[in-house]
Amino acid sequence: MADQYVQTRDGEESPRLASLRWDELPEGPVLILLDQRRLPAEEAELVCTDVPALVQAIRTLAVRGAPLLGIAGAYGVALAAARGYDVAEAAALLETARPTAVNLGYGVRRAAGAYEEAVGKGADAQEAAAAVLAVARELHREDAEASERMAQHGLVLLDELLPGGSHRILTHCNTGRLVSGGEGTAFAVALAAHRTGRLRKLWVDETRPLLQGARLTAYEAARSGMSYTLLTDNAAGSLFVAGEVDAVLIGADRIAADGSVANKVGSYPLAVLAKYHHVPFIVVAPTTTVDLGTAHGASIEVEQRSGREVTEMPVSRAAEQEAEAGGLPLAPLGTQAYNPAFDVTPPELVTAIVTEEGTVSPVTGAGIAELCARLRR
Amino acid sequence: MADQYVQTRDGEESPRLASLRWDELPEGPVLILLDQRRLPAEEAELVCTDVPALVQAIRTLAVRGAPLLGIAGAYGVALAAARGYDVAEAAALLETARPTAVNLGYGVRRAAGAYEEAVGKGADAQEAAAAVLAVARELHREDAEASERMAQHGLVLLDELLPGGSHRILTHCNTGRLVSGGEGTAFAVALAAHRTGRLRKLWVDETRPLLQGARLTAYEAARSGMSYTLLTDNAAGSLFVAGEVDAVLIGADRIAADGSVANKVGSYPLAVLAKYHHVPFIVVAPTTTVDLGTAHGASIEVEQRSGREVTEMPVSRAAEQEAEAGGLPLAPLGTQAYNPAFDVTPPELVTAIVTEEGTVSPVTGAGIAELCARLRR
Repeated sequence: MADQYVQTRDGEESPRLASLRWDELPEGPVLILLDQRRLPAEEAELVCTDVPALVQAIRTLAVRGAPLLGIAGAYGVALAAARGYDVAEAAALLETARPTAVNLGYGVRRAAGAYEEAVGKGADAQEAAAAVLAVARELHREDAEASERMAQHGLVLLDELLPGGSHRILTHCNTGRLVSGGEGTAFAVALAAHRTGRLRKLWVDETRPLLQGARLTAYEAARSGMSYTLLTDNAAGSLFVAGEVDAVLIGADRIAADGSVANKVGSYPLAVLAKYHHVPFIVVAPTTTVDLGTAHGASIEVEQRSGREVTEMPVSRAAEQEAEAGGLPLAPLGTQAYNPAFDVTPPELVTAIVTEEGTVSPVTGAGIAELCARLRR
Repeated sequence: MADQYVQTRDGEESPRLASLRWDELPEGPVLILLDQRRLPAEEAELVCTDVPALVQAIRTLAVRGAPLLGIAGAYGVALAAARGYDVAEAAALLETARPTAVNLGYGVRRAAGAYEEAVGKGADAQEAAAAVLAVARELHREDAEASERMAQHGLVLLDELLPGGSHRILTHCNTGRLVSGGEGTAFAVALAAHRTGRLRKLWVDETRPLLQGARLTAYEAARSGMSYTLLTDNAAGSLFVAGEVDAVLIGADRIAADGSVANKVGSYPLAVLAKYHHVPFIVVAPTTTVDLGTAHGASIEVEQRSGREVTEMPVSRAAEQEAEAGGLPLAPLGTQAYNPAFDVTPPELVTAIVTEEGTVSPVTGAGIAELCARLRR
């Protein structure tokens, strides 16, 4: 049985909530998530006391974003270990909760590996649980550091590509603090540009169907004091024509060995537009997003989500209770929708991939291999 | 004072309502519109008894779509004449109600011209009003005939470009019966393909922000018994990559003398994608959409609409009365949005323009000039 409960904050200006935190409550350890489905209307925390609850939170996107999914997966294994559940079973459940982001599997396997190693060395249940939790915390910290380093490398790249600052950056989906142990991926670069006075404007794609741009990136941009403007994904073309975009910055859910980038649906059309308008298209992602086991973009499994995400708009809780059906219908009843969560951009459309270990540009299989070799040293 | 009232239909399967009809009620002549803002949830008619009411209906998109706007504009002038209002003032109000669709001004000027001509020939008020109404009806009938001929020409073009049938057509926004005196523009071509067994699938872009694809095209496709699938505008890129689109068919709001096409925002990104994937990009529009007075695409005035169309989702009337603010917020309060209603596709990205007078391909200024010369003969 999945066991979650919600704790909400009252209206007053709240301190910034962590996207995810571990807590030791009197009734036992828990993983507490900032429920991203409710943002920006409400800052509510979702308390997961077991792995099925976390899996449900992952599937329903209460917690999301490639790097954060890796951290959540590791803490999920820690939760199973600390609560005395079957760790291997928990790891298997978590690893397959969503298919596209490679980081999730990475975090889960690293944590599960630490558990097995501890047990193999004769640790008791409590010691093994402590070992897993230490690994989850380590991954969390590493991701925060990776954010900082990606921001630095990204800023250097922007200075090279666009000397003189005053950048107008277009971004898609959400890649800030909400997806990361630190300040994020693409958003962290924009934030670093903002802090150093180099950002003129952040253009925020609303990112249908789930509006992560409108709900989450706008929320993060507003909290950071950036100059930002929202647009429908449709309107990006007009911005390119008007010469209002200096660079596109996005994150990634999986980077194949050939440099193909799976990211939120809508990234590929932006890449084609950027190419057509000779605008740099930059992917920012930690090296945990690189999957050498996937040779080509075409081999990346793209999650197909329910058509109801397209045909219905979630409404507020009060309205939801009223209209039992759930969402506000946007299309005639019975309408089927095609709803891939991601698309894949081939390397020839990507100007550069920025990681915490440095920047790959041009993006080629050799460049990716060299980056990964650097990691192993 | 704008004077409109609403009459709704009960739930039972209703006969197909006209997008627009003239009626002579005991209290005087009226223009009755199918309120497109309420579709597909509700089939409600909006009764306009004066021109300010019609202008408001045009601005708020109760009535919309380039060809239908021309017809509505002509009937609006007829309404002013029949009700004894100042016809020149009414024409000026109507002509500027929305800036981008050239058909609106065309219909208004043609009707107002008929009024002036009748008055100049010594007609009394009643005779002049009858003359204007006759012209509005003529325009209405002509547009229906144009739909038929566009559908025929479009079908021939599809057969040439895609021999063997089994077309998978992607469309954007809404271009069917709801925008026309007949069966529409791009949608009429798809419908003709459907009726002759040549349509395998209609892919329907939802068309943010106002979701004319999800609300209106899906409604028309469902009523026509077509095989259709809805998608977010973002997901079109994935369809191209998968080789699932044989042709893109869209309408137009204004075609400049150089062959540039202003159409619903999101058309230009589709044109760039279609070019990149070597898929035909076909514009279907009556010759009333061609504006030789606009030399280039860059001279087309693009209507900028309220950012609230992006930051808020309209909710049902009941919910609206409850949440006084109106729409369901999709972004943090205070978020600014960039919301151009249209974009402009340059001729080099357009495979063909299909009109009732025939097809222009390749699309060049000379081709457009030749088409217009054919009209004058």
